[in-house]
Amino acid sequence: MRAVRLHSYDESPQLDQVAEPDLTGPHDVLVRIAGAGLCRTDLHIRDGWFAPAVPTELPLTLGHENTGVVEAVGPEVGAVVPGDTVICHPQQSCGTCAACRVGDDMRCARGLSFTGLNRAGGFADLLLTTERGVLPLPEGLDPVDLAPHADAGLTAMHVVRKAVPLLGPGTTVAVVGVGGLGHIGIQCLRALTAATIVAADPDPEARALATESGAHHVLPVDGSEVDALRDLTDGAGAHAVIDFVGEGEAVGTALSMVRPRGTYFVVGYGGELRVPTFALVLPEISVVGNAVGTFDDLRELVALAAAGGVTVRTRRYPLEAFADAFADLENGRMHGRGVLVP
Amino acid sequence: MRAVRLHSYDESPQLDQVAEPDLTGPHDVLVRIAGAGLCRTDLHIRDGWFAPAVPTELPLTLGHENTGVVEAVGPEVGAVVPGDTVICHPQQSCGTCAACRVGDDMRCARGLSFTGLNRAGGFADLLLTTERGVLPLPEGLDPVDLAPHADAGLTAMHVVRKAVPLLGPGTTVAVVGVGGLGHIGIQCLRALTAATIVAADPDPEARALATESGAHHVLPVDGSEVDALRDLTDGAGAHAVIDFVGEGEAVGTALSMVRPRGTYFVVGYGGELRVPTFALVLPEISVVGNAVGTFDDLRELVALAAAGGVTVRTRRYPLEAFADAFADLENGRMHGRGVLVP
Amino acid sequence: MRAVRLHSYDESPQLDQVAEPDLTGPHDVLVRIAGAGLCRTDLHIRDGWFAPAVPTELPLTLGHENTGVVEAVGPEVGAVVPGDTVICHPQQSCGTCAACRVGDDMRCARGLSFTGLNRAGGFADLLLTTERGVLPLPEGLDPVDLAPHADAGLTAMHVVRKAVPLLGPGTTVAVVGVGGLGHIGIQCLRALTAATIVAADPDPEARALATESGAHHVLPVDGSEVDALRDLTDGAGAHAVIDFVGEGEAVGTALSMVRPRGTYFVVGYGGELRVPTFALVLPEISVVGNAVGTFDDLRELVALAAAGGVTVRTRRYPLEAFADAFADLENGRMHGRGVLVP
Amino acid sequence: MRAVRLHSYDESPQLDQVAEPDLTGPHDVLVRIAGAGLCRTDLHIRDGWFAPAVPTELPLTLGHENTGVVEAVGPEVGAVVPGDTVICHPQQSCGTCAACRVGDDMRCARGLSFTGLNRAGGFADLLLTTERGVLPLPEGLDPVDLAPHADAGLTAMHVVRKAVPLLGPGTTVAVVGVGGLGHIGIQCLRALTAATIVAADPDPEARALATESGAHHVLPVDGSEVDALRDLTDGAGAHAVIDFVGEGEAVGTALSMVRPRGTYFVVGYGGELRVPTFALVLPEISVVGNAVGTFDDLRELVALAAAGGVTVRTRRYPLEAFADAFADLENGRMHGRGVLVP
Repeated sequence: MRAVRLHSYDESPQLDQVAEPDLTGPHDVLVRIAGAGLCRTDLHIRDGWFAPAVPTELPLTLGHENTGVVEAVGPEVGAVVPGDTVICHPQQSCGTCAACRVGDDMRCARGLSFTGLNRAGGFADLLLTTERGVLPLPEGLDPVDLAPHADAGLTAMHVVRKAVPLLGPGTTVAVVGVGGLGHIGIQCLRALTAATIVAADPDPEARALATESGAHHVLPVDGSEVDALRDLTDGAGAHAVIDFVGEGEAVGTALSMVRPRGTYFVVGYGGELRVPTFALVLPEISVVGNAVGTFDDLRELVALAAAGGVTVRTRRYPLEAFADAFADLENGRMHGRGVLVP
Repeated sequence: MRAVRLHSYDESPQLDQVAEPDLTGPHDVLVRIAGAGLCRTDLHIRDGWFAPAVPTELPLTLGHENTGVVEAVGPEVGAVVPGDTVICHPQQSCGTCAACRVGDDMRCARGLSFTGLNRAGGFADLLLTTERGVLPLPEGLDPVDLAPHADAGLTAMHVVRKAVPLLGPGTTVAVVGVGGLGHIGIQCLRALTAATIVAADPDPEARALATESGAHHVLPVDGSEVDALRDLTDGAGAHAVIDFVGEGEAVGTALSMVRPRGTYFVVGYGGELRVPTFALVLPEISVVGNAVGTFDDLRELVALAAAGGVTVRTRRYPLEAFADAFADLENGRMHGRGVLVP
Repeated sequence: MRAVRLHSYDESPQLDQVAEPDLTGPHDVLVRIAGAGLCRTDLHIRDGWFAPAVPTELPLTLGHENTGVVEAVGPEVGAVVPGDTVICHPQQSCGTCAACRVGDDMRCARGLSFTGLNRAGGFADLLLTTERGVLPLPEGLDPVDLAPHADAGLTAMHVVRKAVPLLGPGTTVAVVGVGGLGHIGIQCLRALTAATIVAADPDPEARALATESGAHHVLPVDGSEVDALRDLTDGAGAHAVIDFVGEGEAVGTALSMVRPRGTYFVVGYGGELRVPTFALVLPEISVVGNAVGTFDDLRELVALAAAGGVTVRTRRYPLEAFADAFADLENGRMHGRGVLVP
Repeated sequence: MRAVRLHSYDESPQLDQVAEPDLTGPHDVLVRIAGAGLCRTDLHIRDGWFAPAVPTELPLTLGHENTGVVEAVGPEVGAVVPGDTVICHPQQSCGTCAACRVGDDMRCARGLSFTGLNRAGGFADLLLTTERGVLPLPEGLDPVDLAPHADAGLTAMHVVRKAVPLLGPGTTVAVVGVGGLGHIGIQCLRALTAATIVAADPDPEARALATESGAHHVLPVDGSEVDALRDLTDGAGAHAVIDFVGEGEAVGTALSMVRPRGTYFVVGYGGELRVPTFALVLPEISVVGNAVGTFDDLRELVALAAAGGVTVRTRRYPLEAFADAFADLENGRMHGRGVLVP
């Protein structure tokens, strides 16, 4: 079968012909890929960012945002049958450790076993995963459009679920960065809260996407955004700020937008948070780190998608055109989310 | 009457003879001081730290940890009558803004009106406060011993209440810094959770106090403490770390003690938090700022004290000996909490 | 001034000429009524239902759903000034007891002091209330239309706020009874959750109102409703059921609609709950009683109304036509909520 | 091997010689029983109470409170190895349904597969269970003494975990019925809260056990208990009542003990709850049904036991003496919990 594999860090991945994976474990599930979303994390993996923290063997098939149709299952699999259309949670968790037992699959005691990161991903014709990594899709949802929900949407839903209890009527939430994650996050906020949503992005096209996704106000990022946010909130700031950028100036900007007793949810990474303890203690501000969501977050996201509450703007590429997709993402030509279709 | 007043920043306060305060508002309450706790914050006020953030007129009577007996009340006061023994919450809140209406008195829309900080405090014979700033004490509690609960205990209880939901059986909490707040915090943790409590302090006497207060393990602070904490927790770190120091090396040390998905509660201030967003995002760590507690926190703390669940180690000084108390605190000769007794 | 007063139980109230109320306490607020909603509870008060539980002196001016313009204020009032348009929370709470200090004003230690129930209400030209019973309205909201929010909307918002944490994407909530409260409750649910909303009412016009208010499905109440609800939920039942009827068959019907681990929120009263403990224990079902909301609930409701998230269907009557309004309500001719306009 | 089996309802079980169970599934775990607790539910099973709700084939080996040593494991088992000492959660859940994915194993979509209820139990030499039904015990805990934690302790811990957030300092919790569950519940409450614990039981020996377990006050059940509880709580009643009886007069008594805004946790079953909706609505009382705890509850309970926070009073019987144990339980001669030891 075909697979887009990374052979060495800092070099472009290539399209290889590889053997089809075999079912080996009793809980294995083989999925024929419908769509595989392309993520900025794929660039980071290519560039070796994750190599120290999550070592893996190369060549590695990339792709952690996958949907498809179940092709075959191991003898112990009860959750799906061949022919089911599924979305694939990237993490293969054990199911029996203390973390898994309460739904915190991303903290599985066995560690990360993450599709496209330290095990073969979905930029290929087939993906080998496990029963605990597949969620059947309800009828009527196009699996290609849904592929980015497996990570971009999942991460957005995860942080929004944490923010929702802070966002009663009359509150304000700021969203910093309106890309793949941000535009889904705005939709989730709109569906799950009555908060006023203010989105900030330097790119006018991203701001247009924010408005279309349900933001009540959009702000450029040109040094005026903190004051502008304060003007919208009687000078107090936002009850919650969700920062999908997490690097450069965004970190300080986002933190400055938080009102006393408010929470700064940081999702993007790459930058540094630097703040006097005084500035956290006196106003009682919280900073909350957010990574990929759990399987249950994926379940809720798919339910919301099925109810029409959230859609992804996608742009499709044939699997063979993966290099174009990488180039478009890297050069800021990708609006919405790229999806490779085998 | 006598009052210990600050006349200019960076100079020692002095004992003055001043006029007794009069009841002016209908909710005013005049309290004859039984005990007034001395706090490191008094040194910070003297040194002008708070002057930019919370401007005030000098001379200022210091003292924000007060207990005493109600001497007189305004015509609208219903919560106390003359003769009641009370503990004084330092904040005089309005009671009608949105924050006050849900118990968040420290965020009163009227701002801080804080005894001994921007209004006259309790290092004096009498304190003028308001109905919303006094809580009757149950019988059998010595008001002199209780005075430090009005800020040290209140702040400790406030942060512990936030941490309790994270601290089920089998969890570990680390307490960094075992002084006035720390030794009360440890007792609150012991009373309200079944978590394993690990306390870290460079001073052997403070570690002895930690043990006496209920800590299960104590650690010196000599560079070995993070590893030692990890050894006690199967390498994972603590579910919650409560940092009563908040400056110097303590900040980085405390943050390093947090396990993935854990929370760093920062109470002390003076230092800087500096951390890559990556290090918060991937392990999903939270940082939570904590200031003085609410009136309801004080109510719970007094209930716990009445039930025998928390005591303060105090050292009494006559009001006239205030300079000795300041010197002992400043020179590390104060073990437990100093209380001025008029 | 004019006032609609109840002179004896079980007799119709009458329109009287009475003296205008004077400000007496320093926190008093005098409100010139814009609109006063008529509620089924007014019928219950007239019929003496509340007399044993909440004794009061007759004659009593009825009316507990009031909005208007501040006419005069006592010397200590800071929250409003004459000319402010306000909505009136019916309860005058003390502000200093333990319950009030955390926002639970309805459990004020001083007991109920409830407009139109045990103190003069708003079926009159002027209403005497207190500072803690008035909430300024944002501009652009018509106070006449908003009057029913002071109790019908408030109660609906109160129960919905409790239900929201149970109602993530993919869940189902059933609303039993779509009258004044129900149609507001459905709008609140729609604004604050992504749950599927199923409303049940025997009256076709009420079901039409449910659909218009945002219900996804409506069910007649003819013996088929429990099965119909189960059909909509894969046989499992609803995650939450909100029963605005609380009497007759509705109680058993509503409880039967709850899925294992679900919650039955009972708001209406008059009937009896009768259930084997076995039927609560095995499926771990909760039953939660709900009364009038807090001041903070009112603040959230008004914020939601200002954001366009909830409107009330009203029918206006001149104050003099109060008897027509009572008759229309009693004879089922009132669709939406009647509001008396002085 | 030996097994105590029920051959027909309403007849005594008998000691049979049966074939040793074989590992069949890849996740199977075979446990050599150390101790098997005897529970009032065993009497109910024998008497056919559960037959309609949870049908099963007879003969059935009884016993759902089991500890032991792992004898053999299926090829996919990773959580335990032969030789591990374990406590057995009675439910064998699937691990992949939505409920299991968030730790709600008792609502597994596959339904109940409950040791000693609808699959062979532990009144035998060996028990066949599955990987998701075994929790390794820390060293130093005697598995015989711990056996009752697998159901009695588990159920007590489950309800106490739900009650803890309501039980801050200054609150009161009433425990109705101090038998096997009750005396563990009191210990859990003592370890996890600072609430005042009031226990009510008609039997003086049970009240002595309550005091020994940590209750602050004990009350006889002779008609005076509701008034006595009110006297202890300034007339208001308890913030939470945990009813381990759930039948006869206990239901009404327990409900009467609840203060406004309080919660009645019902654990025992057999009786009927009958209450006007008015009496739930006005004071906003909640009624919460509670069944067997989850695997995570068991993990917390074992952690608490390991920390010395909870012990069970047990009385050991050789497996052959099972009939004596049944008779002692049935005739009120069992104080503490009977454990059969093969």
